[in-house]
Amino acid sequence: MRIAELSQKAGVPVPTIKYYLREGLLPSGELTSPNQARYDDRHVQRLRLVRVLLDVGRLPIATIRDLLTKLDEPDPDVHEVLGKALPATVGTREGGDPAVLTAAHDRVSALIAQRGWLLSDDARTRHAAAEVIAAFQQVGADAEYLLEHYADAAERIAVHDLGFVARESDNESKVHAAVVGAVLGNSLLAALRRMAQEHESAKMFGIREDNCQAAEAD
Amino acid sequence: MRIAELSQKAGVPVPTIKYYLREGLLPSGELTSPNQARYDDRHVQRLRLVRVLLDVGRLPIATIRDLLTKLDEPDPDVHEVLGKALPATVGTREGGDPAVLTAAHDRVSALIAQRGWLLSDDARTRHAAAEVIAAFQQVGADAEYLLEHYADAAERIAVHDLGFVARESDNESKVHAAVVGAVLGNSLLAALRRMAQEHESAKMFGIREDNCQAAEAD
Repeated sequence: MRIAELSQKAGVPVPTIKYYLREGLLPSGELTSPNQARYDDRHVQRLRLVRVLLDVGRLPIATIRDLLTKLDEPDPDVHEVLGKALPATVGTREGGDPAVLTAAHDRVSALIAQRGWLLSDDARTRHAAAEVIAAFQQVGADAEYLLEHYADAAERIAVHDLGFVARESDNESKVHAAVVGAVLGNSLLAALRRMAQEHESAKMFGIREDNCQAAEAD
Repeated sequence: MRIAELSQKAGVPVPTIKYYLREGLLPSGELTSPNQARYDDRHVQRLRLVRVLLDVGRLPIATIRDLLTKLDEPDPDVHEVLGKALPATVGTREGGDPAVLTAAHDRVSALIAQRGWLLSDDARTRHAAAEVIAAFQQVGADAEYLLEHYADAAERIAVHDLGFVARESDNESKVHAAVVGAVLGNSLLAALRRMAQEHESAKMFGIREDNCQAAEAD
């Protein structure tokens, strides 16, 4: 198909497609003349994946490019993608107190040791966790109240995340599921958590009857 | 204190502080002359909160301004903040298939009804959940495998999130904890989930001994 048809099928404007091509987020089509290229269904699928990682996952372009490179390897290593290639999707902070950050790193190491988590030497996920714990402290809050409960939840969730990956038959599909599950899973969990929080809040802090609809009236 | 001292205490450069003042993220100081203002410890705390919401939570400026407005109300309504004011922190998407999105909305309504979640009429969190479910489908994946497990986890997490809020003594502190917990909680959960995933992946897909350190060697 030509770029106009690709645009229509994927629901992505032509100038945006050209931008993705320049940024290396979409492989080039097959040149049929010096000014025209032909695209196929794999381009449609890749475009949809890029849109979802950008719009729903809100990942930076460079991170998406790295992930797609892994995805395009002939026999991708599923564990390498789950262990290292996926971003921790936590922002980093400047200007924090180094002593607070060091203490947070120690707390993360203790948590990992206590739970016996098998992690690579790559420090990015540990650093992300430590950054968040330090951020709690920086705003006068204490992550300690939540930490072990969240780690329990993370362990249970990870079992299902890996089930989501393992049920795919070949490595290419497994890596695709790992990327989609990791990125969209965060968003799904965040949305469900917000709803569950509102429900718990309604039970705890009360809610005016006329401002609330019971679930059965939905 | 003058703006230079505020900058030093909060670890935020003076031009950035001036930008936050213009954007309404930081209340003005007390004018001591036409060109000078005096700031206090509340400005230091507010600056730290803004940095964390921006850098770790990656929230848009407008969302932070709305949250801070709630925080500054004389007797803020804790349930209103937990129910409506907090963002669902899920990106939205354009160009998706409307039929897929409608089906996703129906799935979310069924989930809410089945779990008896008490939610306000405000549709933002439902819409966020439906957007993510539709995004899974758009990239050829199926959220159904994860949905009920994630909802179970979200319910357990929300109980602890509300405990984190309820242990504060006054409404102002409760709302502060709700904001911090909601935003940083997402980041903490995401970081722990990535570590737990790597651990599950190491167990499931194996890992080369020399590429792995047991937790006790950390």
